[in-house]
Amino acid sequence: VTIERKKVMWNGWGWTARADHLAAREEIWSWLASEIGMPSLLATPTRPLEELTIAEARLSPSERRSLVAILGADRVRDDAFERASHARGRSYQDLVRLRAGNLGELPDAVLYPRGADEVLEVLAFASEGGIAVVPYGGGTSAVGGVNAHAGGLRAIVSLDLSAMDRVIEIDTMSGVATVEAGLGGASLEKSLAARSLTLGHFPESFEFSTLGGWIAHRGAGQLCNRYGGPQEWLLSAKLATPRGILATEEFPVSATGPHLKDLIIGSEGVFGVITEARLRIRPAPESRAYQGYLFRDFASGMTAIRQAMREDIPAAMLRLSDARETGFYRALDNIGRETSIAQRLADAYLEFRGFDAHAALMIAAFEGTSRSAAAARRGFHAIAGRLGAVSLGNSLGERWLRDRYRGPYVRDSMLDRSLGVDTLETAATWSKLPALYAAVRNTLESSIRQSAPYPAARGIVMCRIGHAYPEGASLLFTYIFPRAFDGEVTQWQSIKKAATEAVIAHGGALSHHHGVGEEHLPWMMTQKSPLGLDVLRAVKRTLDPKAILNPGKLIPPE
Amino acid sequence: VTIERKKVMWNGWGWTARADHLAAREEIWSWLASEIGMPSLLATPTRPLEELTIAEARLSPSERRSLVAILGADRVRDDAFERASHARGRSYQDLVRLRAGNLGELPDAVLYPRGADEVLEVLAFASEGGIAVVPYGGGTSAVGGVNAHAGGLRAIVSLDLSAMDRVIEIDTMSGVATVEAGLGGASLEKSLAARSLTLGHFPESFEFSTLGGWIAHRGAGQLCNRYGGPQEWLLSAKLATPRGILATEEFPVSATGPHLKDLIIGSEGVFGVITEARLRIRPAPESRAYQGYLFRDFASGMTAIRQAMREDIPAAMLRLSDARETGFYRALDNIGRETSIAQRLADAYLEFRGFDAHAALMIAAFEGTSRSAAAARRGFHAIAGRLGAVSLGNSLGERWLRDRYRGPYVRDSMLDRSLGVDTLETAATWSKLPALYAAVRNTLESSIRQSAPYPAARGIVMCRIGHAYPEGASLLFTYIFPRAFDGEVTQWQSIKKAATEAVIAHGGALSHHHGVGEEHLPWMMTQKSPLGLDVLRAVKRTLDPKAILNPGKLIPPE
Repeated sequence: VTIERKKVMWNGWGWTARADHLAAREEIWSWLASEIGMPSLLATPTRPLEELTIAEARLSPSERRSLVAILGADRVRDDAFERASHARGRSYQDLVRLRAGNLGELPDAVLYPRGADEVLEVLAFASEGGIAVVPYGGGTSAVGGVNAHAGGLRAIVSLDLSAMDRVIEIDTMSGVATVEAGLGGASLEKSLAARSLTLGHFPESFEFSTLGGWIAHRGAGQLCNRYGGPQEWLLSAKLATPRGILATEEFPVSATGPHLKDLIIGSEGVFGVITEARLRIRPAPESRAYQGYLFRDFASGMTAIRQAMREDIPAAMLRLSDARETGFYRALDNIGRETSIAQRLADAYLEFRGFDAHAALMIAAFEGTSRSAAAARRGFHAIAGRLGAVSLGNSLGERWLRDRYRGPYVRDSMLDRSLGVDTLETAATWSKLPALYAAVRNTLESSIRQSAPYPAARGIVMCRIGHAYPEGASLLFTYIFPRAFDGEVTQWQSIKKAATEAVIAHGGALSHHHGVGEEHLPWMMTQKSPLGLDVLRAVKRTLDPKAILNPGKLIPPE
Repeated sequence: VTIERKKVMWNGWGWTARADHLAAREEIWSWLASEIGMPSLLATPTRPLEELTIAEARLSPSERRSLVAILGADRVRDDAFERASHARGRSYQDLVRLRAGNLGELPDAVLYPRGADEVLEVLAFASEGGIAVVPYGGGTSAVGGVNAHAGGLRAIVSLDLSAMDRVIEIDTMSGVATVEAGLGGASLEKSLAARSLTLGHFPESFEFSTLGGWIAHRGAGQLCNRYGGPQEWLLSAKLATPRGILATEEFPVSATGPHLKDLIIGSEGVFGVITEARLRIRPAPESRAYQGYLFRDFASGMTAIRQAMREDIPAAMLRLSDARETGFYRALDNIGRETSIAQRLADAYLEFRGFDAHAALMIAAFEGTSRSAAAARRGFHAIAGRLGAVSLGNSLGERWLRDRYRGPYVRDSMLDRSLGVDTLETAATWSKLPALYAAVRNTLESSIRQSAPYPAARGIVMCRIGHAYPEGASLLFTYIFPRAFDGEVTQWQSIKKAATEAVIAHGGALSHHHGVGEEHLPWMMTQKSPLGLDVLRAVKRTLDPKAILNPGKLIPPE
């Protein structure tokens, strides 16, 4: 098993053994309180599992015996820890509910199949008995994608795929790896690294999320400018459905109708359970450079990214923070620390060069063969220079690389101290991005102010471009706000709703890489036409005629 | 209208005004006769349209009036030329039948809608009346994709989209063009070139085929290593269906379930009529270099392509002929011509360097910014050098560029002289390619021998790699054979069947870029599982409940 569930927080992000690296820096918390206009921050700890009342599991003894007959006794679990830790994913709403002990629906059992055959048997059994099946990979969904939801059925099982973690074959000649879909990111990359290969998919959830999850929610990795997302690196897949295995085309390219794998990418467990995938793998990069740049403002940094895409400069990542995010992380670094002489000289130089509070930080990554990485770096350097940016060398880049999975841990630190923090991500074409950015930022700021628990309170709203494409880019907003304890979920929903409506009104995608799950479901009809949703429903009916798979996700009811 | 139909052959390839550039070179034909072991070639002209009996159109007067009411009198045509020229595409089988005056089923009318609204009205009318609708773009299908086929319905209309040829919008900031799908390749590129832009899709049918056709059959262009196919450059589309318009997502990327555009690419007119598309367009290349290389053999050339893909060398095209194709085109150039001194010196040099009859010619194309094209060229040059290839300079490349659309014209020249010629294309992963290549070549050779009309007769079987991907490449076989006049179609079918079975047995795709149509339909169940075909049928039922759209193509009957 890739990840031992007991070593992972059941109601928070990440390893239970993690340290709160901001705990010792009290000055940060007082600065944050003043930034959001609150007199002080309160301690808001979580409720321990032992205090909670867990509803009785709804599987009958004979149903439980049947599942044990399929999977073995150790692979049908229904203790409180298993059920609670598989109740929800890791969205803001999930954490607020879990921390408060407000678990909502729970799976009646957590199943750990060891292969596609067992998955098929479970699906046949569940179809027959009218039991909802929630496929569960790493459990890190940011949108309620793995939440236990019966959808009118009698009971729910969570299908934890972490025991399906074999590397089946690596065809080095073709650059194709065949692996089971329950494999976690870190284990997958470790197996590939042993042969000097990489998939190159590094989402922020990398430590916990699985291959199947990446495909199912149509995710993105930090370096997907170079390595692509599942749309690029998934070559074919096997999907276990209540009607059997759907195996997709194994050719690099073929002109034989729509490719069925394209129906699996983003299917979020509603069509079937991804059991196996063939992946485009690449040589581990010979050369790596992670470099910081400071642009005069967000707009000129955005222009640099667009030009790099237009000139085919193969950067692995061009991650641009807006002025607010640039200033925020700078403050987090400096507060309560003495400024070094080197830092002061650097600041003076930047001031002399005309950089002010509008400055925008970029981390640019270049990977590949020595030649291609160096050429990409030279090419981007020239563009950045023409736009008046300065290079900050590689120390910021190296630090980013070291801390690349830390983001979600900080959320827990904030949740412990009465702060809320969430992200909202979208994508649009270049021509729509400036207005989309301004509108969503303004909407987040005003809706946070309106729902704040204190008259002068306000949010911190930051944004970055994380992923770029020839015709546009993604925007990821991070917003920090003081929690309203008389209705935390309502507060978050009102902010989410206002911001999402602004996204849609300005031509942004409902999600760039988080997926739909339950939380984005209310807006799905803005993304697919009624006819488009009918098509998805027809596919669902064909593969899952009893509608047992992941109820309440992705496809809105008719 | 992009292309005037009257200027195009109704029973052959291309412009009626074209010249047979091989007509004057009688020595080529005697050489070909001896190569295929025939005592001589016969003149085998086509039958003129005027000689043929054209069956009465089956639309009732009132149906015809209704169509005229929708489209206008000039846009409902049922004269012999219109009906015959829209009866079939341009596969080998199509040409053999058309040339013999064996037209088969004919459309009862050819309709020329001017926009999506008119298409919707026609589809509603045809759904109501049970009339088959065959969407028709450039009519160049190589697999029977536009053949008039009633599929049990009462009558057939061919929906010629050539009047839907507007460029609707070009968003230069985002690099996105929105165009009507009936636009022909040459017109599209002309409109884009006026703004120094390009789509970069150049199939051999470029002079006649349309944007909608490229998407519908999931085609490839000669430079798709750089510009991609519709899977890459199609951003979104509008599909007119009997249930209304299916408009797909307009975001560069989004994580909101499967992308509906992926169901449109390769849909071959069975789900709906593509009326509009948004395309990824790019700056017209600043720099272009088309370069010849000679490899010692096909295998070392294949290794070079694989290494170039692995090292991220962004060549626009790496087109590698096997020894037979290399020798064939060389012979075609030289036969009956005096060898120049320069040529003799070059030959002596190559012989000294150890190149023999195994030598394999590659045309390598590099396009992009001056910097990126030069870097790609340098990178590939180094790989080719390491593998013992010699550069032949740019004259062969320039000539290839000039003649890039000539291939299908040569087929007509051969058909006029009792020869048959067809192509067969497939794709596989690198590890499967060598065995696939050998098996298909051997099968083509033996099945041609078995079906030949003369004891000593044999075929000429050539192959090239046209398109490469990180995990594999396409193979395109061209085979020339003496026609058996007692059963030309049967002869061709026996060769096609044997070769296709070899393709499938060795892990090749049924088609890399020609599509399925009618001719590949018998093997579709080897490409999609029964469950996969059920999924496609469910999509079809949802969008085209009366099953009027392009009967007999893509999806085999249940």
